[in-house]
Amino acid sequence: MADEPFLLTPGPLTTSMRVKRAMLRDWGSRDGDFIALNAEIRERLTALVDGGHAFTGDDAFTAVPLQGSGTFVVEAMLGTLVPRDGRLLVLVNGAYGERMVKIAGYHGRAVDTLKTAEDVPNDPAALDAKLGSDPSITHVAIVHCETTSGIVNPVAAVAEVVARHKRRLLIDSMSAFGALPLSARDIPFDAVVASSNKCLQGVPGMGFCIVRKSALAEAAGNAPSLVLDLFDQDRAMGGNGQWRFTPPTHVMAAFREAMREHEDEGGVAGRGARYAANCRILVEGMRALGFETLLPDELQAPIIVTFRMPADERFHFETFYDRLRGRGYVIYPGKLTVAPSFRIGCIGDLHEAEMTGALAAIREVLGEMNVSDGKAVAA
Amino acid sequence: MADEPFLLTPGPLTTSMRVKRAMLRDWGSRDGDFIALNAEIRERLTALVDGGHAFTGDDAFTAVPLQGSGTFVVEAMLGTLVPRDGRLLVLVNGAYGERMVKIAGYHGRAVDTLKTAEDVPNDPAALDAKLGSDPSITHVAIVHCETTSGIVNPVAAVAEVVARHKRRLLIDSMSAFGALPLSARDIPFDAVVASSNKCLQGVPGMGFCIVRKSALAEAAGNAPSLVLDLFDQDRAMGGNGQWRFTPPTHVMAAFREAMREHEDEGGVAGRGARYAANCRILVEGMRALGFETLLPDELQAPIIVTFRMPADERFHFETFYDRLRGRGYVIYPGKLTVAPSFRIGCIGDLHEAEMTGALAAIREVLGEMNVSDGKAVAA
Repeated sequence: MADEPFLLTPGPLTTSMRVKRAMLRDWGSRDGDFIALNAEIRERLTALVDGGHAFTGDDAFTAVPLQGSGTFVVEAMLGTLVPRDGRLLVLVNGAYGERMVKIAGYHGRAVDTLKTAEDVPNDPAALDAKLGSDPSITHVAIVHCETTSGIVNPVAAVAEVVARHKRRLLIDSMSAFGALPLSARDIPFDAVVASSNKCLQGVPGMGFCIVRKSALAEAAGNAPSLVLDLFDQDRAMGGNGQWRFTPPTHVMAAFREAMREHEDEGGVAGRGARYAANCRILVEGMRALGFETLLPDELQAPIIVTFRMPADERFHFETFYDRLRGRGYVIYPGKLTVAPSFRIGCIGDLHEAEMTGALAAIREVLGEMNVSDGKAVAA
Repeated sequence: MADEPFLLTPGPLTTSMRVKRAMLRDWGSRDGDFIALNAEIRERLTALVDGGHAFTGDDAFTAVPLQGSGTFVVEAMLGTLVPRDGRLLVLVNGAYGERMVKIAGYHGRAVDTLKTAEDVPNDPAALDAKLGSDPSITHVAIVHCETTSGIVNPVAAVAEVVARHKRRLLIDSMSAFGALPLSARDIPFDAVVASSNKCLQGVPGMGFCIVRKSALAEAAGNAPSLVLDLFDQDRAMGGNGQWRFTPPTHVMAAFREAMREHEDEGGVAGRGARYAANCRILVEGMRALGFETLLPDELQAPIIVTFRMPADERFHFETFYDRLRGRGYVIYPGKLTVAPSFRIGCIGDLHEAEMTGALAAIREVLGEMNVSDGKAVAA
């Protein structure tokens, strides 16, 4: 479509026409064809965390899809798995960690935080000390890639600490799942949530929780919401393969196609490699224009990159945004509290051509704005 | 698509290719184009309840969209609008009324019911007596068309009673909204919920609550869920026109097209007239084959029709379903507790040709099954 821009954002993002075309039919939600479509998606999702190991018995996982955005399934995971007498510790270094704290507040659950700055990863040593001194904490929640900054958090090290203290780990892998590896064989966790519309490149409208069956079995009666009750959702689906309440059928059809496309690209390794290449092109190109990244390269997830706002007073972000938009590239404002910034995403159906195209557009717009370079104000 | 059946169900239902094609592009959720798309939808929705009267001030309504299925926005309406010290009375004559009771239970809110049988409408006189004797009831909830049976409930008479007793009315008009009139000028209510995927003929994935602004303003802090907090959702959208959490962008694009299509068909009157014609063709055709409707015609909404299961022991519903499915028509099992039954819907992008086609297929399948007629066991 002529006026359709490329989305260099953390989502909704650019999807392939192959995925979108899967939405050109209607499905009966209780019909056999749709039940098979769901079963395929759920099997593919659990396969993504099993690392080639077929978990069985108490170790087995189930993938529970849920209507709504990613935050719906984050809330569903917390509401279903943290018991009313539990205590949640959230590792916070950005807006998505803060959001989990807010959700626990809505639910009236006991919640504590362990914070680091937005440009500093979660601290496994501090977690070790905290869990050692506070036996009341039952669950720890981590954000795999915090898209506030684009930082990748040390999920393996955190999982090791949590397991050693015999607590439960809940992972928000929203913006990383499907591009960064997360195998339950290497990383012990009770549940991970993500959505259709990030690295798996479906369209937005559903999320999913891949949860250890034994943990879900203990969660009957926990949830403070009918629609967000993952125990009930899983039990119903296990019975007749159907959703309790009307599923987003077209979104699901697109998601199945997206998961097949993901496999065709080489799964997590293939998808992750393309994003890493996109990220490298972006960061190198922006640095060549003088821009500075918030994060050092070793903390940067290949998902979304935060750039410091240029010091040049001729740089106006709204003008920059609008002119890039006019050239067909949508970028994203910043969400940091630590520094003025904006963000550019590397995920979705974007390849080398789109990344270099975006860089060329950025160069042109800077020229029009008479901005000499992207050098930031001193931090 | 060759194997795509017509959906004679209460939804997901058959949508037009015009609506589905609107999903063939990606939208940035914080981009101006998408903000405008949302604004258009919200304006169209409030216009549907204003009956030509522009409400202002305390009388004004706002349309709050929400991710998820219809039940998500039912739960959001109850959780947001019924205060923690309120008391909800639900008028129950089917599964959707029962579901509201279940939701109130999840929320720990005081709830009471006034029940009639599944083939009997809500009783305004009994409601009058109940409200007269129980001043603790703050809110009354009604299901406009209870798709368990297909019955239309007396929403105007109920609204009059509720208003006279100065209580608040909450309407689940899921399966009726957009086909049966519901003007706030004639029918006083605080809120009505419905979804994209019923009579407005969008695809599933979002619902909406059209709520009196003054009622919503009183509801700050009520909601037991972050994602289902309609007060917070409305406040955020009122601020920058954006959703708090990733919206189902493709579903929304389809919904805007569906609302334009609805207007093109003549709005509520035009849409309702076609469904009424569909329903007449269906009921007359089925009666000609000996089938019996659960409901007398005057209680039948032109949405979905419940037929009693035939007495002929050669009639097996699963075979009947599968053979109709093979001919391209998906029907729906029954949900009644009062009598064995099945259901056939009249809504969606279905016209005379599809209804007569379905009847022809039913006639053929009965012949193959050697079922002489659809006469039911005595009630």
